[in-house]
Amino acid sequence: MEEPETLLALLQDFAKIEGHKVLVHGGGRSATQISARLGIESQMVNGRRITDAETLKVVTMVYGGLVNKNIVAGLQALNVNALGLTGADLNYMRSEKRPVGEVDYGFVGDVKEVQSSILANLIEMGVVPVLAPLTHDKQGHLLNTNADTIAGEAAKALAKHFEVTLMFCFEKKGVLSDAEDDDSVISEITRESFAKYVADGVIQGGMIPKLENAYEAIDAGVKEVIITRADDIFAGGGTKVI
Amino acid sequence: MEEPETLLALLQDFAKIEGHKVLVHGGGRSATQISARLGIESQMVNGRRITDAETLKVVTMVYGGLVNKNIVAGLQALNVNALGLTGADLNYMRSEKRPVGEVDYGFVGDVKEVQSSILANLIEMGVVPVLAPLTHDKQGHLLNTNADTIAGEAAKALAKHFEVTLMFCFEKKGVLSDAEDDDSVISEITRESFAKYVADGVIQGGMIPKLENAYEAIDAGVKEVIITRADDIFAGGGTKVI
Repeated sequence: MEEPETLLALLQDFAKIEGHKVLVHGGGRSATQISARLGIESQMVNGRRITDAETLKVVTMVYGGLVNKNIVAGLQALNVNALGLTGADLNYMRSEKRPVGEVDYGFVGDVKEVQSSILANLIEMGVVPVLAPLTHDKQGHLLNTNADTIAGEAAKALAKHFEVTLMFCFEKKGVLSDAEDDDSVISEITRESFAKYVADGVIQGGMIPKLENAYEAIDAGVKEVIITRADDIFAGGGTKVI
Repeated sequence: MEEPETLLALLQDFAKIEGHKVLVHGGGRSATQISARLGIESQMVNGRRITDAETLKVVTMVYGGLVNKNIVAGLQALNVNALGLTGADLNYMRSEKRPVGEVDYGFVGDVKEVQSSILANLIEMGVVPVLAPLTHDKQGHLLNTNADTIAGEAAKALAKHFEVTLMFCFEKKGVLSDAEDDDSVISEITRESFAKYVADGVIQGGMIPKLENAYEAIDAGVKEVIITRADDIFAGGGTKVI
Protein backbone atom coordinates (compact mmCIF):
# COMPACT_ATOMS: atom_id res chain seq x y z
CA MET A 1 0.00 0.00 0.00
CA GLU A 2 3.02 2.25 0.13
CA GLU A 3 3.35 3.04 -3.57
CA PRO A 4 0.85 5.61 -4.88
CA GLU A 5 -0.42 3.56 -7.87
CA THR A 6 -0.77 0.32 -5.89
CA LEU A 7 -2.49 2.24 -3.11
CA LEU A 8 -4.97 3.87 -5.48
CA ALA A 9 -5.86 0.53 -7.09
CA LEU A 10 -6.32 -1.07 -3.69
CA LEU A 11 -8.48 1.76 -2.40
CA GLN A 12 -10.63 1.56 -5.53
CA ASP A 13 -11.16 -2.15 -4.88
CA PHE A 14 -11.78 -1.51 -1.20
CA ALA A 15 -14.36 1.17 -2.04
CA LYS A 16 -16.29 -1.44 -4.06
CA ILE A 17 -16.67 -3.82 -1.12
CA GLU A 18 -20.31 -3.74 -0.10
CA GLY A 19 -21.52 -3.61 3.46
CA HIS A 20 -19.69 -2.50 6.56
CA LYS A 21 -15.91 -2.52 6.41
CA VAL A 22 -12.73 -1.59 8.23
CA LEU A 23 -9.28 -1.10 6.74
CA VAL A 24 -6.13 -1.87 8.73
CA HIS A 25 -2.78 -0.78 7.35
CA GLY A 26 0.90 -1.15 8.08
CA GLY A 27 3.67 1.06 6.82
CA GLY A 28 6.87 -0.79 7.64
CA ARG A 29 8.67 -0.01 4.39
CA SER A 30 8.04 3.71 4.69
CA ALA A 31 9.09 3.59 8.34
CA THR A 32 12.34 1.91 7.36
CA GLN A 33 12.96 4.47 4.60
CA ILE A 34 12.22 7.49 6.80
CA SER A 35 14.31 5.99 9.62
CA ALA A 36 17.25 5.60 7.23
CA ARG A 37 16.89 9.21 6.06
CA LEU A 38 16.86 10.33 9.71
CA GLY A 39 19.95 8.24 10.44
CA ILE A 40 18.07 5.77 12.63
CA GLU A 41 18.92 2.12 12.08
CA SER A 42 15.94 -0.23 11.74
CA GLN A 43 16.46 -3.34 13.86
CA MET A 44 14.21 -6.31 13.17
CA VAL A 45 13.91 -9.51 15.21
CA ASN A 46 11.68 -12.32 13.84
CA GLY A 47 10.19 -9.79 11.41
CA ARG A 48 9.25 -7.45 14.25
CA ARG A 49 10.65 -3.95 14.59
CA ILE A 50 12.62 -3.11 17.72
CA THR A 51 11.01 0.17 18.75
CA ASP A 52 13.32 2.46 20.68
CA ALA A 53 12.24 6.02 21.57
CA GLU A 54 13.39 7.47 18.24
CA THR A 55 11.78 4.66 16.26
CA LEU A 56 8.52 5.20 18.16
CA LYS A 57 8.54 8.79 16.89
CA VAL A 58 9.12 7.57 13.35
CA VAL A 59 6.30 5.03 13.42
CA THR A 60 3.97 7.56 15.04
CA MET A 61 4.73 9.93 12.16
CA VAL A 62 4.60 7.33 9.40
CA TYR A 63 1.77 5.05 10.53
CA GLY A 64 -0.38 7.64 12.36
CA GLY A 65 0.30 10.48 9.91
CA LEU A 66 1.73 9.78 6.47
CA VAL A 67 0.17 6.42 5.67
CA ASN A 68 -3.07 6.75 7.63
CA LYS A 69 -4.01 10.23 6.45
CA ASN A 70 -3.19 9.54 2.81
CA ILE A 71 -5.44 6.46 2.93
CA VAL A 72 -8.21 8.48 4.59
CA ALA A 73 -7.95 11.26 1.99
CA GLY A 74 -7.84 8.67 -0.81
CA LEU A 75 -10.96 6.94 0.47
CA GLN A 76 -12.83 10.22 0.97
CA ALA A 77 -12.14 11.01 -2.70
CA LEU A 78 -13.93 7.73 -3.48
CA ASN A 79 -16.87 8.75 -1.27
CA VAL A 80 -15.93 6.31 1.48
CA ASN A 81 -16.46 8.08 4.80
CA ALA A 82 -13.10 7.16 6.30
CA LEU A 83 -11.89 8.03 9.79
CA GLY A 84 -8.29 7.36 10.77
CA LEU A 85 -7.72 5.91 14.23
CA THR A 86 -4.89 4.83 16.46
CA GLY A 87 -5.71 2.92 19.60
CA ALA A 88 -5.47 6.20 21.52
CA ASP A 89 -8.25 7.83 19.50
CA LEU A 90 -11.47 7.36 21.45
CA ASN A 91 -9.38 4.95 23.54
CA TYR A 92 -10.65 2.19 21.30
CA MET A 93 -7.64 -0.14 21.75
CA ARG A 94 -5.52 -0.23 24.89
CA SER A 95 -2.27 -2.14 25.18
CA GLU A 96 0.57 -2.67 27.62
CA LYS A 97 4.25 -2.38 26.86
CA ARG A 98 5.58 -5.84 26.11
CA PRO A 99 7.62 -7.18 29.05
CA VAL A 100 11.32 -7.57 28.32
CA GLY A 101 12.02 -11.25 27.73
CA GLU A 102 14.70 -12.82 25.57
CA VAL A 103 14.22 -9.83 23.31
CA ASP A 104 13.57 -6.24 24.38
CA TYR A 105 11.17 -5.05 21.69
CA GLY A 106 11.07 -1.57 23.23
CA PHE A 107 7.90 0.50 22.86
CA VAL A 108 5.75 -2.31 21.51
CA GLY A 109 2.25 -2.83 22.87
CA ASP A 110 0.42 -6.11 23.49
CA VAL A 111 -3.32 -5.52 23.16
CA LYS A 112 -5.26 -5.74 26.43
CA GLU A 113 -8.65 -4.20 25.70
CA VAL A 114 -10.69 -3.36 22.61
CA GLN A 115 -13.81 -1.26 23.04
CA SER A 116 -15.82 -3.11 20.45
CA SER A 117 -18.88 -0.88 20.81
CA ILE A 118 -16.86 2.18 19.75
CA LEU A 119 -15.89 0.54 16.48
CA ALA A 120 -19.35 -0.98 16.04
CA ASN A 121 -21.11 2.37 16.61
CA LEU A 122 -18.89 4.13 14.08
CA ILE A 123 -19.56 1.39 11.55
CA GLU A 124 -23.31 1.53 12.17
CA MET A 125 -23.12 5.27 11.46
CA GLY A 126 -21.63 4.57 8.03
CA VAL A 127 -18.08 5.45 9.06
CA VAL A 128 -15.22 3.31 7.72
CA PRO A 129 -12.50 3.12 10.37
CA VAL A 130 -8.94 3.14 9.01
CA LEU A 131 -6.80 1.60 11.72
CA ALA A 132 -3.11 2.46 12.09
CA PRO A 133 -0.83 -0.08 13.79
CA LEU A 134 -0.44 2.02 16.94
CA THR A 135 -2.02 1.53 20.34
CA HIS A 136 -1.66 3.31 23.69
CA ASP A 137 -1.39 2.33 27.32
CA LYS A 138 -3.91 4.91 28.61
CA GLN A 139 -1.01 6.38 30.60
CA GLY A 140 -0.05 8.80 27.84
CA HIS A 141 2.25 6.52 25.85
CA LEU A 142 1.77 5.40 22.28
CA LEU A 143 2.97 1.89 21.48
CA ASN A 144 3.84 0.15 18.23
CA THR A 145 1.57 -2.82 17.51
CA ASN A 146 1.77 -5.13 14.52
CA ALA A 147 -0.89 -4.49 11.87
CA ASP A 148 -1.87 -8.18 11.71
CA THR A 149 -2.50 -8.06 15.45
CA ILE A 150 -4.63 -4.91 15.12
CA ALA A 151 -6.62 -6.59 12.33
CA GLY A 152 -7.11 -9.76 14.38
CA GLU A 153 -8.10 -7.89 17.53
CA ALA A 154 -10.50 -5.61 15.66
CA ALA A 155 -12.08 -8.59 13.89
CA LYS A 156 -12.49 -10.46 17.18
CA ALA A 157 -14.10 -7.43 18.81
CA LEU A 158 -16.42 -6.83 15.86
CA ALA A 159 -17.47 -10.48 15.82
CA LYS A 160 -19.55 -9.60 18.92
CA HIS A 161 -21.63 -7.26 16.74
CA PHE A 162 -21.41 -8.47 13.14
CA GLU A 163 -20.69 -11.47 10.93
CA VAL A 164 -17.02 -10.80 10.21
CA THR A 165 -14.70 -11.86 7.40
CA LEU A 166 -11.05 -11.09 8.10
CA MET A 167 -8.80 -10.72 5.06
CA PHE A 168 -5.05 -10.54 5.46
CA CYS A 169 -3.61 -8.96 2.32
CA PHE A 170 0.06 -9.26 1.49
CA GLU A 171 2.33 -9.49 -1.53
CA LYS A 172 1.74 -13.21 -2.27
CA LYS A 173 -1.37 -14.84 -3.70
CA GLY A 174 -1.89 -16.79 -0.49
CA VAL A 175 -0.04 -19.19 1.77
CA LEU A 176 2.41 -21.01 -0.50
CA SER A 177 3.42 -24.66 -0.26
CA ASP A 178 6.61 -23.81 -2.15
CA ALA A 179 8.16 -20.43 -1.34
CA GLU A 180 9.83 -20.44 -4.79
CA ASP A 181 6.56 -20.97 -6.65
CA ASP A 182 4.14 -18.04 -6.44
CA ASP A 183 1.34 -20.19 -7.82
CA SER A 184 1.61 -22.94 -5.20
CA VAL A 185 -1.22 -21.44 -3.15
CA ILE A 186 -2.67 -23.72 -0.48
CA SER A 187 -6.39 -23.14 -1.03
CA GLU A 188 -7.50 -24.26 2.40
CA ILE A 189 -5.71 -24.72 5.71
CA THR A 190 -7.17 -26.57 8.67
CA ARG A 191 -5.72 -26.67 12.17
CA GLU A 192 -4.42 -30.17 11.47
CA SER A 193 -2.77 -29.30 8.17
CA PHE A 194 -1.36 -26.10 9.71
CA ALA A 195 0.38 -28.09 12.45
CA LYS A 196 1.76 -30.48 9.84
CA TYR A 197 2.94 -27.68 7.50
CA VAL A 198 4.77 -26.04 10.42
CA ALA A 199 6.31 -29.35 11.52
CA ASP A 200 7.48 -30.00 7.96
CA GLY A 201 8.90 -26.46 7.59
CA VAL A 202 6.51 -25.67 4.70
CA ILE A 203 5.01 -22.77 6.66
CA GLN A 204 7.54 -20.67 8.50
CA GLY A 205 8.59 -17.16 9.53
CA GLY A 206 6.04 -14.35 9.58
CA MET A 207 3.31 -16.63 8.22
CA ILE A 208 3.15 -18.54 11.50
CA PRO A 209 1.95 -15.61 13.68
CA LYS A 210 -0.40 -14.58 10.83
CA LEU A 211 -2.04 -18.00 10.93
CA GLU A 212 -2.03 -18.05 14.71
CA ASN A 213 -3.88 -14.72 14.60
CA ALA A 214 -6.29 -16.25 12.11
CA TYR A 215 -7.16 -19.18 14.41
CA GLU A 216 -7.48 -16.86 17.41
CA ALA A 217 -9.96 -14.82 15.39
CA ILE A 218 -11.93 -17.92 14.40
CA ASP A 219 -12.02 -19.08 18.02
CA ALA A 220 -13.43 -15.66 18.95
CA GLY A 221 -16.27 -15.95 16.46
CA VAL A 222 -14.88 -14.51 13.23
CA LYS A 223 -16.70 -16.30 10.40
CA GLU A 224 -13.87 -16.72 7.96
CA VAL A 225 -10.27 -15.71 7.46
CA ILE A 226 -8.70 -15.34 4.04
CA ILE A 227 -5.05 -14.73 3.29
CA THR A 228 -4.56 -13.27 -0.17
CA ARG A 229 -2.89 -10.69 -2.37
CA ALA A 230 -4.28 -7.17 -2.06
CA ASP A 231 -5.12 -6.96 -5.77
CA ASP A 232 -6.94 -10.31 -5.66
CA ILE A 233 -9.52 -9.48 -3.03
CA PHE A 234 -12.32 -9.87 -5.57
CA ALA A 235 -10.74 -12.77 -7.44
CA GLY A 236 -11.91 -15.36 -4.93
CA GLY A 237 -8.46 -16.91 -4.63
CA GLY A 238 -6.09 -16.96 -1.71
CA THR A 239 -5.91 -19.30 1.23
CA LYS A 240 -8.99 -19.92 3.29
CA VAL A 241 -8.28 -20.65 6.94
CA ILE A 242 -10.82 -22.94 8.52
CA MET B 1 3.07 22.45 22.85
CA GLU B 2 6.09 20.80 21.35
CA GLU B 3 8.14 20.22 24.52
CA PRO B 4 6.95 17.29 26.65
CA GLU B 5 6.75 19.19 29.98
CA THR B 6 4.98 22.21 28.49
CA LEU B 7 2.61 19.90 26.66
CA LEU B 8 1.75 17.94 29.78
CA ALA B 9 1.06 21.14 31.76
CA LEU B 10 -1.11 22.48 28.96
CA LEU B 11 -3.06 19.24 28.62
CA GLN B 12 -3.63 19.16 32.37
CA ASP B 13 -5.07 22.69 32.19
CA PHE B 14 -7.09 21.79 29.11
CA ALA B 15 -8.52 18.72 30.86
CA LYS B 16 -9.82 21.01 33.64
CA ILE B 17 -11.88 23.15 31.26
CA GLU B 18 -15.51 22.34 31.93
CA GLY B 19 -18.10 21.82 29.22
CA HIS B 20 -17.61 20.96 25.60
CA LYS B 21 -14.23 21.68 24.09
CA VAL B 22 -12.04 21.29 21.03
CA LEU B 23 -8.27 21.49 20.85
CA VAL B 24 -6.48 22.77 17.74
CA HIS B 25 -2.74 22.38 17.49
CA GLY B 26 0.14 23.40 15.25
CA GLY B 27 3.53 21.78 15.08
CA GLY B 28 5.66 24.15 13.02
CA ARG B 29 8.79 23.86 15.14
CA SER B 30 8.81 20.08 14.97
CA ALA B 31 8.12 20.23 11.23
CA THR B 32 11.12 22.53 10.78
CA GLN B 33 13.33 20.24 12.89
CA ILE B 34 12.28 17.05 11.10
CA SER B 35 12.62 18.77 7.72
CA ALA B 36 16.17 19.81 8.61
CA ARG B 37 17.03 16.26 9.66
CA LEU B 38 15.63 14.99 6.34
CA GLY B 39 17.66 17.59 4.44
CA ILE B 40 14.58 19.59 3.39
CA GLU B 41 14.91 23.34 3.69
CA SER B 42 11.99 25.12 5.39
CA GLN B 43 10.96 28.17 3.41
CA MET B 44 8.70 30.68 5.12
CA VAL B 45 6.95 33.70 3.56
CA ASN B 46 5.08 36.08 5.89
CA GLY B 47 5.29 33.46 8.62
CA ARG B 48 3.66 30.86 6.36
CA ARG B 49 5.39 27.67 5.29
CA ILE B 50 5.92 27.07 1.56
CA THR B 51 4.65 23.51 1.22
CA ASP B 52 6.27 21.60 -1.65
CA ALA B 53 5.59 17.87 -2.12
CA GLU B 54 8.33 16.79 0.30
CA THR B 55 7.25 19.34 2.90
CA LEU B 56 3.65 18.12 2.60
CA LYS B 57 4.88 14.65 3.57
CA VAL B 58 6.70 16.12 6.56
CA VAL B 59 3.71 18.09 7.84
CA THR B 60 1.43 15.11 7.28
CA MET B 61 3.79 13.04 9.43
CA VAL B 62 4.39 15.68 12.08
CA TYR B 63 0.97 17.36 12.38
CA GLY B 64 -1.23 14.34 11.58
CA GLY B 65 0.96 11.79 13.34
CA LEU B 66 3.59 12.86 15.85
CA VAL B 67 1.93 15.92 17.40
CA ASN B 68 -1.71 14.92 17.02
CA LYS B 69 -1.39 11.37 18.35
CA ASN B 70 0.78 12.36 21.30
CA ILE B 71 -1.81 14.96 22.30
CA VAL B 72 -4.60 12.39 21.92
CA ALA B 73 -2.73 9.84 24.03
CA GLY B 74 -1.89 12.52 26.60
CA LEU B 75 -5.53 13.57 26.89
CA GLN B 76 -6.78 9.99 27.10
CA ALA B 77 -4.43 9.49 30.07
CA LEU B 78 -6.28 12.42 31.69
CA ASN B 79 -9.66 10.77 30.94
CA VAL B 80 -10.47 13.23 28.16
CA ASN B 81 -12.05 11.25 25.32
CA ALA B 82 -9.90 12.72 22.55
CA LEU B 83 -10.19 11.94 18.85
CA GLY B 84 -7.56 13.25 16.44
CA LEU B 85 -8.82 14.61 13.14
CA THR B 86 -7.49 16.09 9.95
CA GLY B 87 -9.95 17.69 7.56
CA ALA B 88 -9.95 14.43 5.59
CA ASP B 89 -11.23 12.39 8.54
CA LEU B 90 -15.01 12.16 8.21
CA ASN B 91 -14.52 14.84 5.51
CA TYR B 92 -15.18 17.41 8.21
CA MET B 93 -13.15 20.23 6.59
CA ARG B 94 -12.64 20.59 2.85
CA SER B 95 -10.27 23.05 1.26
CA GLU B 96 -8.92 24.00 -2.15
CA LYS B 97 -5.29 24.42 -3.07
CA ARG B 98 -4.44 28.10 -2.81
CA PRO B 99 -4.15 29.66 -6.27
CA VAL B 100 -0.64 30.76 -7.20
CA GLY B 101 -0.46 34.55 -6.82
CA GLU B 102 2.56 36.67 -5.98
CA VAL B 103 3.67 33.74 -3.86
CA ASP B 104 3.28 30.04 -4.68
CA TYR B 105 2.55 28.53 -1.29
CA GLY B 106 2.45 25.03 -2.77
CA PHE B 107 0.19 22.42 -1.17
CA VAL B 108 -1.63 24.85 1.11
CA GLY B 109 -5.41 24.67 1.42
CA ASP B 110 -7.90 27.52 1.80
CA VAL B 111 -10.95 26.25 3.69
CA LYS B 112 -14.10 25.98 1.59
CA GLU B 113 -16.50 23.88 3.66
CA VAL B 114 -16.81 22.80 7.28
CA GLN B 115 -19.36 20.13 8.16
CA SER B 116 -20.35 21.71 11.45
CA SER B 117 -22.79 18.91 12.34
CA ILE B 118 -19.98 16.33 12.29
CA LEU B 119 -18.00 18.27 14.89
CA ALA B 120 -21.15 19.13 16.85
CA ASN B 121 -22.33 15.50 16.96
CA LEU B 122 -18.96 14.28 18.19
CA ILE B 123 -18.95 16.96 20.88
CA GLU B 124 -22.50 16.12 21.96
CA MET B 125 -21.33 12.49 22.33
CA GLY B 126 -18.65 13.61 24.80
CA VAL B 127 -15.82 13.35 22.31
CA VAL B 128 -13.10 16.03 22.37
CA PRO B 129 -11.89 16.62 18.80
CA VAL B 130 -8.16 17.31 18.48
CA LEU B 131 -7.73 19.11 15.18
CA ALA B 132 -4.48 18.92 13.21
CA PRO B 133 -3.68 21.78 10.80
CA LEU B 134 -4.31 19.65 7.71
CA THR B 135 -7.27 19.70 5.35
CA HIS B 136 -8.08 17.87 2.12
CA ASP B 137 -9.59 18.73 -1.24
CA LYS B 138 -11.91 15.66 -1.41
CA GLN B 139 -9.92 14.67 -4.52
CA GLY B 140 -7.42 12.61 -2.55
CA HIS B 141 -4.96 15.36 -1.67
CA LEU B 142 -4.05 16.51 1.80
CA LEU B 143 -3.30 20.21 2.15
CA ASN B 144 -1.45 22.22 4.79
CA THR B 145 -3.69 24.75 6.54
CA ASN B 146 -2.63 27.20 9.23
CA ALA B 147 -3.72 26.18 12.75
CA ASP B 148 -5.21 29.63 13.48
CA THR B 149 -7.35 29.23 10.38
CA ILE B 150 -8.51 25.77 11.47
CA ALA B 151 -9.37 27.17 14.91
CA GLY B 152 -11.26 30.10 13.42
CA GLU B 153 -13.18 27.94 10.94
CA ALA B 154 -14.04 25.33 13.55
CA ALA B 155 -15.22 28.04 15.96
CA LYS B 156 -17.37 29.66 13.27
CA ALA B 157 -18.92 26.31 12.35
CA LEU B 158 -19.59 25.42 15.99
CA ALA B 159 -21.18 28.81 16.65
CA LYS B 160 -24.19 27.43 14.73
CA HIS B 161 -24.63 24.83 17.49
CA PHE B 162 -23.10 26.21 20.69
CA GLU B 163 -22.07 29.37 22.50
CA VAL B 164 -18.39 29.43 21.52
CA THR B 165 -15.33 31.01 23.10
CA LEU B 166 -12.27 30.91 20.84
CA MET B 167 -8.90 31.08 22.59
CA PHE B 168 -5.74 31.61 20.61
CA CYS B 169 -2.81 30.45 22.74
CA PHE B 170 0.73 31.48 21.90
CA GLU B 171 3.99 32.25 23.67
CA LYS B 172 3.09 35.80 24.77
CA LYS B 173 0.66 36.88 27.50
CA GLY B 174 -1.55 38.56 24.91
CA VAL B 175 -1.34 41.18 22.18
CA LEU B 176 1.45 43.52 23.27
CA SER B 177 1.56 47.28 22.79
CA ASP B 178 5.36 47.13 23.09
CA ALA B 179 7.02 44.06 21.55
CA GLU B 180 9.96 44.53 23.94
CA ASP B 181 7.79 44.50 27.05
CA ASP B 182 6.09 41.15 27.75
CA ASP B 183 3.82 42.80 30.30
CA SER B 184 2.42 45.42 27.95
CA VAL B 185 -0.70 43.34 27.24
CA ILE B 186 -3.55 45.20 25.56
CA SER B 187 -6.48 43.94 27.65
CA GLU B 188 -9.16 44.70 25.08
CA ILE B 189 -9.11 45.37 21.35
CA THR B 190 -12.03 46.79 19.41
CA ARG B 191 -12.28 47.03 15.63
CA GLU B 192 -11.50 50.72 15.87
CA SER B 193 -8.45 50.32 18.09
CA PHE B 194 -7.27 47.35 15.94
CA ALA B 195 -7.28 49.55 12.82
CA LYS B 196 -5.39 52.27 14.69
CA TYR B 197 -2.82 49.84 16.17
CA VAL B 198 -2.15 48.46 12.67
CA ALA B 199 -1.88 51.96 11.15
CA ASP B 200 0.56 52.95 13.92
CA GLY B 201 2.63 49.78 13.46
CA VAL B 202 1.93 48.65 17.05
CA ILE B 203 0.31 45.45 15.79
CA GLN B 204 2.15 43.77 12.93
CA GLY B 205 3.29 40.48 11.38
CA GLY B 206 1.54 37.27 12.27
CA MET B 207 -0.69 39.03 14.81
CA ILE B 208 -2.64 40.76 12.02
CA PRO B 209 -4.08 37.57 10.44
CA LYS B 210 -4.74 36.21 13.94
CA LEU B 211 -6.86 39.26 14.75
CA GLU B 212 -8.51 39.18 11.33
CA ASN B 213 -9.45 35.54 12.06
CA ALA B 214 -10.79 36.71 15.41
CA TYR B 215 -13.09 39.32 13.87
CA GLU B 216 -14.25 36.90 11.19
CA ALA B 217 -15.17 34.49 13.98
CA ILE B 218 -17.06 37.18 15.88
CA ASP B 219 -18.92 38.17 12.70
CA ALA B 220 -19.93 34.51 12.33
CA GLY B 221 -21.41 34.38 15.81
CA VAL B 222 -18.52 33.34 18.05
CA LYS B 223 -19.23 34.88 21.47
CA GLU B 224 -15.75 35.91 22.46
CA VAL B 225 -12.18 35.61 21.29
CA ILE B 226 -9.25 35.68 23.69
CA ILE B 227 -5.58 35.79 22.76
CA THR B 228 -3.38 34.60 25.58
CA ARG B 229 -0.49 32.47 26.73
CA ALA B 230 -1.19 28.73 26.93
CA ASP B 231 -0.28 28.55 30.62
CA ASP B 232 -2.54 31.50 31.44
CA ILE B 233 -5.81 30.08 30.17
CA PHE B 234 -7.25 30.04 33.68
CA ALA B 235 -5.59 33.26 34.80
CA GLY B 236 -8.19 35.49 33.19
CA GLY B 237 -5.53 37.60 31.49
CA GLY B 238 -4.75 37.98 27.83
CA THR B 239 -6.31 40.18 25.21
CA LYS B 240 -10.05 40.14 24.71
CA VAL B 241 -11.12 40.84 21.15
CA ILE B 242 -14.51 42.53 20.93
